Amino acid sequence: MGIGDDAAILRVPSGHEMLVTTDFSLEGVHFRREWHPPESVGHRCLARGLSDIAAMGGEPVAAFLSLALPTELPQKWVDGFLRGLTALARKHGVALAGGDTSASPDGILADIIVVGSSPVGKAVRRTGAKPGDSIYVTGELGASAKALAAMYENPKKRLSPKKHLRHFFPEPRLALARYLREHKIVTAMIDLSDGLSTDLHHICDESGVGASISARLIPCAEGASLKQALDGGEDYELLFTAPAGRKVPRKIAGVAVTRIGEILRTRKVSIWTQSEGAKAKRSALVAGGWEHFVE
Amino acid sequence: MGIGDDAAILRVPSGHEMLVTTDFSLEGVHFRREWHPPESVGHRCLARGLSDIAAMGGEPVAAFLSLALPTELPQKWVDGFLRGLTALARKHGVALAGGDTSASPDGILADIIVVGSSPVGKAVRRTGAKPGDSIYVTGELGASAKALAAMYENPKKRLSPKKHLRHFFPEPRLALARYLREHKIVTAMIDLSDGLSTDLHHICDESGVGASISARLIPCAEGASLKQALDGGEDYELLFTAPAGRKVPRKIAGVAVTRIGEILRTRKVSIWTQSEGAKAKRSALVAGGWEHFVE
Repeated sequence: MGIGDDAAILRVPSGHEMLVTTDFSLEGVHFRREWHPPESVGHRCLARGLSDIAAMGGEPVAAFLSLALPTELPQKWVDGFLRGLTALARKHGVALAGGDTSASPDGILADIIVVGSSPVGKAVRRTGAKPGDSIYVTGELGASAKALAAMYENPKKRLSPKKHLRHFFPEPRLALARYLREHKIVTAMIDLSDGLSTDLHHICDESGVGASISARLIPCAEGASLKQALDGGEDYELLFTAPAGRKVPRKIAGVAVTRIGEILRTRKVSIWTQSEGAKAKRSALVAGGWEHFVE
Repeated sequence: MGIGDDAAILRVPSGHEMLVTTDFSLEGVHFRREWHPPESVGHRCLARGLSDIAAMGGEPVAAFLSLALPTELPQKWVDGFLRGLTALARKHGVALAGGDTSASPDGILADIIVVGSSPVGKAVRRTGAKPGDSIYVTGELGASAKALAAMYENPKKRLSPKKHLRHFFPEPRLALARYLREHKIVTAMIDLSDGLSTDLHHICDESGVGASISARLIPCAEGASLKQALDGGEDYELLFTAPAGRKVPRKIAGVAVTRIGEILRTRKVSIWTQSEGAKAKRSALVAGGWEHFVE
């Protein structure tokens, strides 16, 4: 691997193919300087890319960071950002192999590129869900949206990152995803960056199928509403499908795995809900995913 | 190659390694909407990445575009930008394989990632220049800086892109660079994105050598000053070194190749200049390369 050159040189293990993903982290869109400490911004920047590699069942190899900074930005902020980013990179054995730097006309602008690898033909796609497959999610959902809602409600108050780890320091589910691929459990997978209701639609659209899930089965994070668990993005948990008969451990790599519904032949995506004392009813699940700050 | 998934899948030809490069194109830093037509911005965005791959003697494979747009931007602008970018991509057989889109807090923000390949161990580095090597540049230098100077001088007047092609639609020297690598001519190479005086320092620093060039040998573009040829960036020509005895064609892939000096054992970088009637004198060549608009 060559750094300090016009381009970085990466050797690909023989029998493997490369995975490439790019993700912006823009001030005012993906984070706010007054809400997010620099270590969190750096961590989340890389976590977004690693989570995409996890969703393919891949192994991250190298990261590239394009970073544009306003001239007034204190060096201390940049140091914190890089500390957060490199700590996560080290944890997952990812080399920071290059990138670009520039002055920024306004605000902090980062673009992370993560290159991963997986055995040829074995990367997990969004296209493989089949009617009858069970639908699973990892971990708990809605924690990130809950933290975001608390910040919107009280913009002056700084939230404790330690008390809201899933928002400030989300863990990409790389080991869990690799287990699913290696044990041939998974038929389709996506990471929950936009929110369950949106990302389930992505899986269904790409696979040409529909789905039915049950509200009561969804593992809501403590204190999070069903709406936050359904529509809140940035949990960076995984949504995947597996054949109905396939045994799926309740816990993989220390993370809970929960069945929440099944894939249907119809192209509709629906959810069963039940108010107290009333009969369960099925309604269309509308993609109501995460919205950027500025939109 | 998979699109519409969490990451793009790239197959690497066996016996090849991957080259990865990322480059920002930021409004107000790398271009101005009132100066640069959208087709030019799109073209230059990709040309920056392709030129980096050329500098390694590589073959471009795929490009990824992260693009953040302000909400007020007319769709017509985006269409023009993509037209310029994809026309250049098609010309060089590069697939636009993915990327990211986002709202922008301010201005148009693009980050281009180009993935290329080259036979294992054969990528041309900046580190290979040896004392005694001859120094060459391709094409003519200073044309881009000349156009930029004209725009600064008269900010309201729109320059004709057709009359200033090297600024608005620079051609990355991919075929020429590949020829140099395949014919084992080149010992070190860099693309002239920052300007000759800066990029020659990069080659010397990375190779642990010095250099001496002659002002009268530098192929100045018509109407460009020596200063523009030396310090103006964004010509996207190539600077390379070759062993002293090595025969180098005067023209490769239709582009002139000019010897401008030689590599020295000393770590100093100098230039011979001659005023009319006076004796030639040697002075230190200061890295005075291209400056971003906002700096």
